[in-house]
Amino acid sequence: MKITVTTLELRDKITIASKALAKKSVKPILAGFLFEVKDGNFYICTTDLETGVKATVNAAEISGEARFVVPGDIIQKLVKVLPDEITELSLEGDVLVISSGSTVFRITTMPADEFPEITPAESGITFEVDISLLEEMVEKVIFAAAKDEFMRNLNGVFWELHKNLLRLVASDGFRLALAEEQIENEEETSFLLSLKSMKEVQNVLDNTTEPTITVRYDGRRVSLTTNDVETVMRVVDAEFPDYKRVIPETFKTKVVVSRKDLMESLKRVMVIASKGSESVKFEIEENVMRLVSKSPDYGEVIDEVEVQKEGEDLVIAFNPKFIEDVLKHIETEEIEMNFVDSTSPCQINPLDISGYLYIVMPIRLA
Amino acid sequence: MKITVTTLELRDKITIASKALAKKSVKPILAGFLFEVKDGNFYICTTDLETGVKATVNAAEISGEARFVVPGDIIQKLVKVLPDEITELSLEGDVLVISSGSTVFRITTMPADEFPEITPAESGITFEVDISLLEEMVEKVIFAAAKDEFMRNLNGVFWELHKNLLRLVASDGFRLALAEEQIENEEETSFLLSLKSMKEVQNVLDNTTEPTITVRYDGRRVSLTTNDVETVMRVVDAEFPDYKRVIPETFKTKVVVSRKDLMESLKRVMVIASKGSESVKFEIEENVMRLVSKSPDYGEVIDEVEVQKEGEDLVIAFNPKFIEDVLKHIETEEIEMNFVDSTSPCQINPLDISGYLYIVMPIRLA
Repeated sequence: MKITVTTLELRDKITIASKALAKKSVKPILAGFLFEVKDGNFYICTTDLETGVKATVNAAEISGEARFVVPGDIIQKLVKVLPDEITELSLEGDVLVISSGSTVFRITTMPADEFPEITPAESGITFEVDISLLEEMVEKVIFAAAKDEFMRNLNGVFWELHKNLLRLVASDGFRLALAEEQIENEEETSFLLSLKSMKEVQNVLDNTTEPTITVRYDGRRVSLTTNDVETVMRVVDAEFPDYKRVIPETFKTKVVVSRKDLMESLKRVMVIASKGSESVKFEIEENVMRLVSKSPDYGEVIDEVEVQKEGEDLVIAFNPKFIEDVLKHIETEEIEMNFVDSTSPCQINPLDISGYLYIVMPIRLA
Repeated sequence: MKITVTTLELRDKITIASKALAKKSVKPILAGFLFEVKDGNFYICTTDLETGVKATVNAAEISGEARFVVPGDIIQKLVKVLPDEITELSLEGDVLVISSGSTVFRITTMPADEFPEITPAESGITFEVDISLLEEMVEKVIFAAAKDEFMRNLNGVFWELHKNLLRLVASDGFRLALAEEQIENEEETSFLLSLKSMKEVQNVLDNTTEPTITVRYDGRRVSLTTNDVETVMRVVDAEFPDYKRVIPETFKTKVVVSRKDLMESLKRVMVIASKGSESVKFEIEENVMRLVSKSPDYGEVIDEVEVQKEGEDLVIAFNPKFIEDVLKHIETEEIEMNFVDSTSPCQINPLDISGYLYIVMPIRLA
């Protein structure tokens, strides 16, 4: 086997593939990159058994055949420090010789027998999405997903195709984020992608220069195809909860408030709230929303924000981080907070923009 | 007690004093800021028993007297989020009321009985140093000090006044850094400041707008005085080793090499060296220095750097991080490496600049 490739192309493909590298704990061999040289093609593959990446490396010269695994940590560092524009790869027994300028690395490889094949979804529902639109939708909801990998049905983002709409939903049980946009597709389907797969989706979207991406779902796997990279993700085999149930249909109190003012007020009350209670009381009256937090050890804080209110006065408490997280993902100057009562979920959305909404569960008043 | 102060001045003085805050483990009360209002002055003080800071706060209105301690974590966060330009402080029993705009914090204070007085050195040897010069000297040597607080005689920087020279020396036993500059002072003295005190010195130098700083040493304490801030540091009661002993007097091999080339070569060999051995062999021949590192599990790397060599060929091994650390603290394009043999300390210094030198101990060749 002999390969001559630009150092930049080798580095780019290693970087793209690195996102699906498994932690060593999964299976040691999967903490490495599969190098596959076959029929004049050079592929770099990674998989953590849930997500797989198969990147085609564009090389000036490819000869021979080979299939071996390179330790992940070493090769990622190594491609960043190669001194010359051109790098040559060759095999001496099980040693990969990497030469660039006057530098020679000899890296011990591992046999590829136990490395699974990466096979993209080949049939199923296919739809195209504008990349910048999809990037924004993902960014607006992903933070609300449960971080705990053991909560399999919440540790991800739910995708729903319904009546020419693509809807993404994420929730950790305490808050929920929903983003929806029109797309040209009349099929009805839904699937759940894990948070790790979603980060891979973000990685693919970040690294693509094309305007749209093709998504294919075959009932078991989702494939994303761009340029020289195929990314295959297994959907999560768990049921996403019936999220529509927690979105209130009518409200008794509506508040319009400057996003920046509320953000700054939250920062002030969080000085105290972060010391124990993690709870802030919102006292909503005519023209004013008072934020109050107390800590038995440190003291208390009272802060006021000017608001426009419709409907009833209300006292309700939240974990301030959940409100702050929502505000970070809204871009309008003003936001709308819609309440039913002090024990029902609160809906927050940008003012005068539809398709994006957030639900935050209140905390019991102390 | 009532104080009216600009929020900016309050925040600045809290920030300056925060650097001498003790970790909670030392003594709980010292994890707080002492607020002292007395004779129309408002002082904010901190100490970890080794370093003390006494900052005078310039306030528009100061009335009454008080002495109490405010929890450190809370007050540091709080001063960053106060909404108005002006902040008012008052006491209600043991509660400090902090009002700014429409925000009110009520913070439970602690009694100040156990908080020690901060008393600056009042007599002893006094010298003035140019602040930018001292900043540079400290920056050039501090990295070489031992990080381990239990190595009391090496966990700091040694100051030496000798024949109109100020010399700073730091060493962790494996490497040594020395910086020396002329100052106008004919006295002879020396003292050792701990790494923590040295960081406080850096902090003081960073926060001063004046051109020079006055250093006073009374045999037990070092005081730095600038504007409204007095910083007092206890010197370390331990003997700094006789560092002159490890600085070679004659050399058998001298290498001049581009700092950038050697830095990049080190980055390459460290890909392998960081995987176990932490050792790089330097093979010095006519015009070339070859860097070689091997890892039993991962493989090996061979790299070459062009050099100008005088004297004998040499093979010697180092921990590459120690060489990298030195290169990061030299600014000249070329550096000089001076060797005796493969078991003696190596001296590295900038080319054609005197007063700054580094010593690195070699590793036994494998």
